[in-house]
Amino acid sequence: MEKLSTQPYKGTRDFYPADMQLRNWFFGVVRRVLETAAFEEYNGPMLESLDLYAAKSGEELADKQTYNFTDRGNRHVAIRPEMTPTVARMVAAKMNDLTFPLKWFSIPNMYRYEATQRGRLREFWQLNVDIFGCDTYEADLDCIIAAINILRAFGADETMFTVRINNRRFFNDVIAAITGKTEDDAKAVSKVVDRRNKVPRDVYEKDLTALGLTAEQIAKLDSLYGMSVREAAALCPASAGAGELLALFEMLEKLGLDRYCVFDFGIVRGLDYYTGTVFEVFDNAPENNRAMFGGGRYDNLVGLFVKNAKISGVGFGMGDVTLENFLITHDLILSSVGGAAKVLVTRFDDVPYEEYLKLTETLRAAGIVSSLYLGSKKFGKQLDYAVKTNCTHICVMGGDELARGVVRVKNLATREERDVPKEEITKAF
Amino acid sequence: MEKLSTQPYKGTRDFYPADMQLRNWFFGVVRRVLETAAFEEYNGPMLESLDLYAAKSGEELADKQTYNFTDRGNRHVAIRPEMTPTVARMVAAKMNDLTFPLKWFSIPNMYRYEATQRGRLREFWQLNVDIFGCDTYEADLDCIIAAINILRAFGADETMFTVRINNRRFFNDVIAAITGKTEDDAKAVSKVVDRRNKVPRDVYEKDLTALGLTAEQIAKLDSLYGMSVREAAALCPASAGAGELLALFEMLEKLGLDRYCVFDFGIVRGLDYYTGTVFEVFDNAPENNRAMFGGGRYDNLVGLFVKNAKISGVGFGMGDVTLENFLITHDLILSSVGGAAKVLVTRFDDVPYEEYLKLTETLRAAGIVSSLYLGSKKFGKQLDYAVKTNCTHICVMGGDELARGVVRVKNLATREERDVPKEEITKAF
Repeated sequence: MEKLSTQPYKGTRDFYPADMQLRNWFFGVVRRVLETAAFEEYNGPMLESLDLYAAKSGEELADKQTYNFTDRGNRHVAIRPEMTPTVARMVAAKMNDLTFPLKWFSIPNMYRYEATQRGRLREFWQLNVDIFGCDTYEADLDCIIAAINILRAFGADETMFTVRINNRRFFNDVIAAITGKTEDDAKAVSKVVDRRNKVPRDVYEKDLTALGLTAEQIAKLDSLYGMSVREAAALCPASAGAGELLALFEMLEKLGLDRYCVFDFGIVRGLDYYTGTVFEVFDNAPENNRAMFGGGRYDNLVGLFVKNAKISGVGFGMGDVTLENFLITHDLILSSVGGAAKVLVTRFDDVPYEEYLKLTETLRAAGIVSSLYLGSKKFGKQLDYAVKTNCTHICVMGGDELARGVVRVKNLATREERDVPKEEITKAF
Repeated sequence: MEKLSTQPYKGTRDFYPADMQLRNWFFGVVRRVLETAAFEEYNGPMLESLDLYAAKSGEELADKQTYNFTDRGNRHVAIRPEMTPTVARMVAAKMNDLTFPLKWFSIPNMYRYEATQRGRLREFWQLNVDIFGCDTYEADLDCIIAAINILRAFGADETMFTVRINNRRFFNDVIAAITGKTEDDAKAVSKVVDRRNKVPRDVYEKDLTALGLTAEQIAKLDSLYGMSVREAAALCPASAGAGELLALFEMLEKLGLDRYCVFDFGIVRGLDYYTGTVFEVFDNAPENNRAMFGGGRYDNLVGLFVKNAKISGVGFGMGDVTLENFLITHDLILSSVGGAAKVLVTRFDDVPYEEYLKLTETLRAAGIVSSLYLGSKKFGKQLDYAVKTNCTHICVMGGDELARGVVRVKNLATREERDVPKEEITKAF
């Protein structure tokens, strides 16, 4: 019979214990920061109705980007490519029982159908942080503080990352103010401005000129990219978005968090989705200088499910691959993620097996990570196993030690050995 | 536009924060027990090649029980319905780099295409515990001890569950010994015996008679079901399986774990899969008396991937729904899974917002779960929010407290209030 392949499915990863320990460690740090800030964890199903994604992203995109299929009950389902539609559905389902504002987070696995490249896999885990039901900038600030505190909890400082902040309402308002256009006409300009860094400069200028902008107006738009938040806000002081930006930055300054943050008119994110504050967190490392993750305020996703519902949200997402790359780049992964004692109880054939079993269970009951060597092999093999599996200590109990009521404990790092009375064994590590 | 449904996909669940807290709590207990026994966590992809399941369960069953589809690269993939093929693939892929015996566990989510009923959902989380590379009963014992210790860690005792143990090698050997048949002919008898509790008694007897068994032989088979392990083993003392059973039970007795365990000739599990020790853990509650989970020894799954590989395994699996039902039935869920302080910092409009932000960040930096009320509402609304979101304390800091450098701390359970100097606030909870 032909042997099966041992490769994981394209774009997915196997997490061997060392990989899993690393992921558990870093998501554990994330969890602790968020729980301390009173965010609560939730989760939802891996499969959802395809409609959920089509309603948000359009049918074609939903079909193209997701793994989707028709089940035997003729339901068109997709493996979730993102968490927002699920959480919006969950909020909608219990809208009348939940106490707002909600502060929720989740770390689900998800799939996107895409070409695999560095930092982009088909299966990934993504932290999702959201606050629902607070319409004002305080929730935006709480999210940005959470993002900063997560990175600081790993030991990252302001030399390593920057939070680039803009406001979609301000973006639209200031474009309307500079061009003197009505809201609808300004939208066409916004679409061109959004592509500023994605198209050649001459195309950018041609497109704006075609919409009736003067060279002076185009230059004024350009000037926004180097401005401080106060200079920018002064161009359009009546904008509610400008007010939100100013309030946000004022508080960041008063908390001493402005050293991590900068106003950046170039941060727009998906045009049809975000409605207020938007931000992206950049890795400052020159070799990796790009947005690691981001988020912002989006209004009324719950309205897709419930008529007349009006629950705003603000949140951000962060992928496991991106976070891991950042931690590696800045050498923020603890060299010893574990650190606690790990004991191998070795065995000899001339001592009753139950003596070893009892010793191991005593250690475990005291919370000491320990295993009894499985099978009966030469002592050298057992020692070799202890070293290869990163044990910190071995316990040796031959006939002699058994008779004397002691266990010989060897520290594998220092090579120090000593006899410990059996009844004091749990204090030896 | 028609509103989308808020229902989760059939057979799946939404985990709201209270549900998630419960699941995190009980899998946290499981994790701690296993890690203390030196099991290491791993994980693998949600999608695997359908071949993996077809090779183990046959193509028809694999197709019928899994969610499977063809991807755009013409790969036939399935959402994993179980973890064993994945872990066997992972072990095979790094066979030459891994140090055996491996003690591994995982708690993945998985999907099975089945009719939904109590305890059986389409999406579930399943603990998988395996030891690879130890051929002797010591590994079987280590797994059974782990299963017992998991349930004991929740406070379960011998009145609540029973581990029913058999051995597939013994099962085959004793049937051959009683019937006097060759190994191959005995297999046909084994298949009938396996169905003993699933078919009417007259059909069972007719089938055995058709295979040439006498009434006396049938009665002797029946007698096995009430026997102790020593009585049963005596019927076929030369069987290696009998030896394994005796060694296993001897150690369980010496460890005082035999009060949780019983020999049961009726435990067989999948005929084509298990090769040695098999066990099932039963809930003793009369209203729920059935196998909660089980496992056993299976040989050489790794051989599906690597020519001439011979790595045996022993393990068990346990679903989240089953475990939760057991904990509920026996009232083993802590009434307060959380328990730590949770603080709401309330706010007034006449105090600068940054004062509240700084207070909240001070609490969080000390590891105290705390949130600042988002938005600005009447005090009564804020208090209401604190109560509904299960806060244990609120902090009140109006203009007067601010001037005096204190924070008023109110315990919501005892209704006790006191002023705490701002610099001592982290000691107040």
